[in-house]
Parts: sequence; C-alpha cells; structure tokens
Amino acid sequence: MTGMEAALVAVGSELLGADRSDTNSSRLAAALAGQGVAVRRRAIVGDDEAAIAGEVARAVAEGIDLLILSGGLGPTADDVTREGVAMALARGLEERPEILADIAARFEGLGLRMPEVNRRQARIMAGAEVLPNRRGTAPGQRLAAGKLTLFLFPAVPDELEGMIEEHLVPWLAERGGGEAREMAVLKVACLPESAVEERIGPFYEAFGREGLTVLASAGEIQLRLTAAGSPDGRRRWLAPRLARLRELLGERIFADRPEVSLEGVVGDLLRRAGASLATAESCTGGLLAERLTRVPGASDYFLGSVVSYSDRLKIDLLGIPAELLAREGAVSAEVARAMASAARRLLGADLGVALTGVAGPGGGSAAKPVGTVHLAIAGPGEALEHRHLRFPGDRERIRWLASQWALDRIRRGPLARRAAAGAAGGEEVPAG
Amino acid sequence: MTGMEAALVAVGSELLGADRSDTNSSRLAAALAGQGVAVRRRAIVGDDEAAIAGEVARAVAEGIDLLILSGGLGPTADDVTREGVAMALARGLEERPEILADIAARFEGLGLRMPEVNRRQARIMAGAEVLPNRRGTAPGQRLAAGKLTLFLFPAVPDELEGMIEEHLVPWLAERGGGEAREMAVLKVACLPESAVEERIGPFYEAFGREGLTVLASAGEIQLRLTAAGSPDGRRRWLAPRLARLRELLGERIFADRPEVSLEGVVGDLLRRAGASLATAESCTGGLLAERLTRVPGASDYFLGSVVSYSDRLKIDLLGIPAELLAREGAVSAEVARAMASAARRLLGADLGVALTGVAGPGGGSAAKPVGTVHLAIAGPGEALEHRHLRFPGDRERIRWLASQWALDRIRRGPLARRAAAGAAGGEEVPAG
Repeated sequence: MTGMEAALVAVGSELLGADRSDTNSSRLAAALAGQGVAVRRRAIVGDDEAAIAGEVARAVAEGIDLLILSGGLGPTADDVTREGVAMALARGLEERPEILADIAARFEGLGLRMPEVNRRQARIMAGAEVLPNRRGTAPGQRLAAGKLTLFLFPAVPDELEGMIEEHLVPWLAERGGGEAREMAVLKVACLPESAVEERIGPFYEAFGREGLTVLASAGEIQLRLTAAGSPDGRRRWLAPRLARLRELLGERIFADRPEVSLEGVVGDLLRRAGASLATAESCTGGLLAERLTRVPGASDYFLGSVVSYSDRLKIDLLGIPAELLAREGAVSAEVARAMASAARRLLGADLGVALTGVAGPGGGSAAKPVGTVHLAIAGPGEALEHRHLRFPGDRERIRWLASQWALDRIRRGPLARRAAAGAAGGEEVPAG
Repeated sequence: MTGMEAALVAVGSELLGADRSDTNSSRLAAALAGQGVAVRRRAIVGDDEAAIAGEVARAVAEGIDLLILSGGLGPTADDVTREGVAMALARGLEERPEILADIAARFEGLGLRMPEVNRRQARIMAGAEVLPNRRGTAPGQRLAAGKLTLFLFPAVPDELEGMIEEHLVPWLAERGGGEAREMAVLKVACLPESAVEERIGPFYEAFGREGLTVLASAGEIQLRLTAAGSPDGRRRWLAPRLARLRELLGERIFADRPEVSLEGVVGDLLRRAGASLATAESCTGGLLAERLTRVPGASDYFLGSVVSYSDRLKIDLLGIPAELLAREGAVSAEVARAMASAARRLLGADLGVALTGVAGPGGGSAAKPVGTVHLAIAGPGEALEHRHLRFPGDRERIRWLASQWALDRIRRGPLARRAAAGAAGGEEVPAG
C-alpha cells in the first residue's frame, strides 16, 4: 500500500460558488491520511454527468489508485453521479430489487409511501459492490476498474461519516498494515518565510525537500515533516530531521504541536515562573490583552490592561507626563518605556508590557510612517527592554504583528533583566 | 461574455490535507459570480509541476475560457506554478530585469538584501502580461493560449484580494456587457438563525426561496439576494424583496453592505452623535476594545478601556467597592453596573460599557454557569442599562457573543437614557 494515491471529487453545483465549502473532502482527506494514503488531487464539479465522467476518465488515465466521489446519489434529477461514473467506465446501471425493497421499507417505517423518484437510488453499476447506508436512503457503491478502485458516497455529512467508518477505513486497513503517516510540527514566531528558508538551507542540503512543508501566516511559520512507513521507520526518518531543524532554528521555535499557540506558551512560562503580567496598549487597542486571555486560566498570571487609546488616558490613567508626550509624541521609545513602567507599577505586576505605534491607514509621517511600533517591557528592578519595529501591511496586519512581537519578546526573555534599556535603533521587519 | 466558463486551481500541498480549506477559490468564485462568469470546476493540486501542467492541459482540452491559478508563486523551490504552466503550454520562462529590480528595491526599502531565492519571482512566461502586486513580491501573470485566458495569482489572501480588485474584476468588466449578477445584502445582529427564519416566513410565502441565501455566523446573519438579468430587471426583482425583508427585520438590520461591520456602524453612530465611549472589560479580556479599534479613525470617539481581569484591578483601578465584589461576586449585575459607571466617569466618556462573565471552560457554578454574562451601559445623567445574558458555546464563542451583544446594545440605544436600570431577570440566548 505504500505509495497508494487518491483523488477526491465532491459533486454539487452549490459547492462551486463562494458560500459553501467542501468539508466532505476534508473529512475524507483526514481519513486517508490516517491510513497512509496520499491525496494527489481534490476537485469540485457541478451536478453534471459529463463533468463527473471527465474526473473518472482522468483518474484512470493518470493511474490513480483510489477515486472517492461524494454527492450526487440523491433521488432527484440533478443527482447524476451514478450515471456519470457509469458513462466513463461504459458500465450498465441496473435497478436492484432488493435495494428498492429496502428503500421502500424505510419509507413505510415512517408511515409513508416511497416517492417514485427514489427508485433511482436503487440503480447500481454492473460489477459494483453495494455499500449499505444505515443513516440514509442512498447506498454507496464500490467498484474496481483495472488498477483504480472507485467509491461512491452520499454527501450528507452524517451519512458520509458512517460510510467512512463502516466501509472506507476497514477496506483501507485491510490493505494497509500499519502504513500510516505521522506528522511532526515545529512552530516559529517572528521570522519572515525567506529568513526561515535561509536558515534551514543546510537541512535541505542534508535531507532534500521531500516530506517538509513550510506554511506561513502573519508572524508565524509552521514547518511540517511527514513520515510514512512502519512506526520504526517513521521514527528513524523523523528523528534526525527534527533534530537538525531544532539546531538551525533554535529559540525561534516556540512549539512542537500544531494546537499550541504563542499566547499559550507565554502563559505556561509565566505560570511556571510564578510571574504576573499587565499591559498598556495604544495602537493594538486591547489585542494583546485579548490574546493573552484567550487561554483558559489566564487569570493565574494576567492581571489586566490599560488600553489608553487617547493621549488623555495616557496622562490621567497611566501618569505619563504631558510634557513627555508633547516632546516625544505618543509613538516614541520614551512613551513606550513610560507606559510599560506604569503598567507594571500601577497594576502591580512583575512584568509590564507596552505597545504604541501607527497602525494606519492615517496618522503616518515621514519620521513615523504607518507600521512604526514601539514595544517596551518593564521587568523587576525597573529593567527596561525596548524594540523599535516597523511592520508592513494594513491596519489589521500591523496590529497583529505588534501583538505577536510582544508575545515573542516576553517568551524569549521573561523576567530576564535586560542590561541595556533598548537594544538599538530600529529592527526592520520585512514580510512578517 | 454570456456563457463564459471558468475553472479554478488552488496550488499547495497543504490544501490537500484536512487542516486547511481553500478559501482563495471561494473568494475567486465570488468575484466571478459578480461578473456573471460560471465556475465549471474547482481543483486543488499539490506543489507538483506535472499536476499543475495537467490542470492547464485539461482546461485547454475542454475549451474552458478562463483558468485562474492561485498559489505557487513564492520564492522557494516548491513554488512551481510558473514552471507547471510553462510546461503545459510549451512556453519559455525568462527573468525580467525590471521585475527583479522591483523586488530588490522592496527589500532595500526594509534595509535588507534580497535573498537569492527571490530571483525566481521575476520569471515571466513568454507572451504573458505582468500583473503588478502592490502588497507582496510575487507579481501575477496573465496570458492567452488560444481560446483560454490564464491568470496566475499569489495565494496570500491579502495579496490575492488586491489582484482580484486591480487585475481580474476590471478585465472581466471590460468583457462583461451588463450580464452581471447583482447581490443585495442585509446584515442582522444578535438574532439566532431560526429566529430570523421565523421572522421572514411571510417573505417566503410571498416570494419563495429562490435567490435568497441565509448565511449564519456567530451573532450575525447575512441575508443575500442575488438577481440576474438586465440592470432594469434586476432592480425590479430586488426592490420589493429588499423592502419586505426590511419590514420584517426592522432595527435588527445593522448594515446593507457586506463589508460594513457592526463595530463600524457603532463608530459611525458615535461620531455623528459627537459622543465618546470607554469600556471596562473582564471576561472579554479586551476584545470589545480591540473590535472598536479595528475601525480606522476610532480615536475620534473611543477613549480607551480598563481590562480589569483580576478582582484587585477592579478595586484599585476602577474603584469597585471590595465589599460589593465580596457580596455579589465579580460576575453580577451590580458589579457590571459599577464597572460601566467607573469606565464612564474615570475615563471621562459620554458612554461607559462593561462586560463581566464566565467565559469558561472553568469557573462556572450552578448559579452562574459558563456562558453567564452581565452587560451594562452607563449613559449621561448616570442612566444605566443592564442585560443579563446567557450564551452557548466554548470560550471563544462566548467572548465573541458578549462583544457582539455589547456593540449591538450601543447601536440600538446610543446615548438614549434608559428608564429602567436593568430590564429584567435573564435574557436567554439560544443559538447565537
């Protein structure tokens, strides 16, 4: 079964538009991944016999092992998956009396007469195995055509789920024999994709690109290693690769499980250190506090935040000297430092974190363009760390990246006394 | 252009799995629908030159008019869309010096040297039109191959959005000729889908279900009417339907354009009223402030927030009497009212809004189960409005719904003096 390749086809005109997403194929992809089957292509076609036939013909021509179609097995005239597949494979369709009786009995059980249209659901391709559907009227079908095995499944999610469990997974498992895949994940914060690529160059030289996927989102890169084969083989394949990536990316890696978030890691560190945190936010408008409190139990270490969106609140609530604001401007290293100190002292926390910047689209100037952000962290003994950052993108992205950089700086030096108050002039951030 | 048919191909191995959904093709499908172009097939293929070439060859063979590929234009070795398309059409790829210079300049602007890998993004197919990408380094490409027109777009959603607006829609509109579809949207806040369905029952009786789509998300329902035909015909079809829906849903409708957000509507109302707003948040942890400040220019009316996540900050910073907290608990009508008053007075705003509740998963009790939220709004003359809410769902959903209800209450009665301080016992919220 190693190297078995599958294609998925979701049938339904409504899936071609913008409103509905094809969750059935995702469900099927998960089931296949669990059995070590690679998905080579996913397609969505309308309720169109020729389009369905085209997908089948292509799978045959390409030498795909497994083609799974979901949808188009209903009773109405636009349910034409049976017909499309039969056309492509030049198979006859025959009405099976025992299936018809089953469907009729199902209606009778509800005190209803079977509508004439439901007859179509009893049509089975010559040579196909009928796959009973205990959750609905449309049975599935499985048939072989040379190298290719086809599955026809209903699209109702609940019915599909039943078909996967009862008919697909057991069939694959019989042919599989512990060939499942395994995925290892490393999550990296605050490095642009091209910088990650540059750093892991030596990995590519040693191991090539096979099995490694790089997924970038704003301020975060996910590296995924996928191993196939026996459990032992997978371990032997994964271990040196993971070790090498860890070496190359070092402390930039913040998690090795996909479900772990940066704010969750920061929370764990704070809890373990027994330290409390408070924030003072301007440009992010509360986003940093909101992210910190996404984590259940954040009240163990997070005290609160002053979102001082107006200058007056910076003065009245945080006690920033009006003179300092007037001289340096709200977006400045000095005000960021004063805000961090105030958050720490005023809110009685071990760590105070402040963000002030220009999120745009308005408010930028030559000296302080949109994307300029000052991040400051006040720690014990009034130790102050400062970063002058510049983020690309729109308002939403700039705010997100600012919160991301703040979390990552807390992570990489929580409670560590910083010698110099503010490392240097400006740390430029390219693609986020 | 009537009858123009398109196929969409999303490129990216990560999209073949179960974790990522292909939202780019959905966005493209929406843009095409708006221009009256039918989508005949959607496909997802991995980062695989032959698979990409196969999609192009198939589109040519089937006589498709338009093929749009998204993804695989990045700088890394697995970005092979350019190569796959060039292979299928037997076109050469050449590095264009002016594009290379553009990309290099973009890096220089950030104080960085262009990594060597980014050279690949300057490779353009022979005969292709370069489509500038103002939001990223990878330019798009458009080229004709017989009847077929191909678009190559980047996959970063923000960049793709720019390409659609600047390069796809204008190109389609030029070829359109008034056959477009037209969509009218009504957005409804804080009513569950079943309640909306019940309210618009009379609409279904009068007009049927044709052309109306109901899209539900947390705390928000979007009603979409889609009209086809001539501009005149569309107007005649839309006008009575829109009027009827407006009658049936009344003030529950907060917007009639898809891009308008609830926080944007609240901002407009505050700006027009010349009123300022401050918040005090507990369970939402800053989400309400964060949403209010997503709107550019929010500083015109939003002063700031105190995120008093710990009880001590409620006492120290907001001045809530310790005795009240001890007697009623932090999640109570009385504390919510006191927080709203404090936000208003302390932060010097016309309106003070407070949220306190149990977001879960822990912290619930029989008397105050997870999902319990108290919302209070303090207005001029110490007028106080209070709502006792109960939301279903997980932590994220409860927090979101709390912020949604707060925004909607501000919208429906901004600055209006509320006679009764707190309408009644409990307002149960079914499906959100």
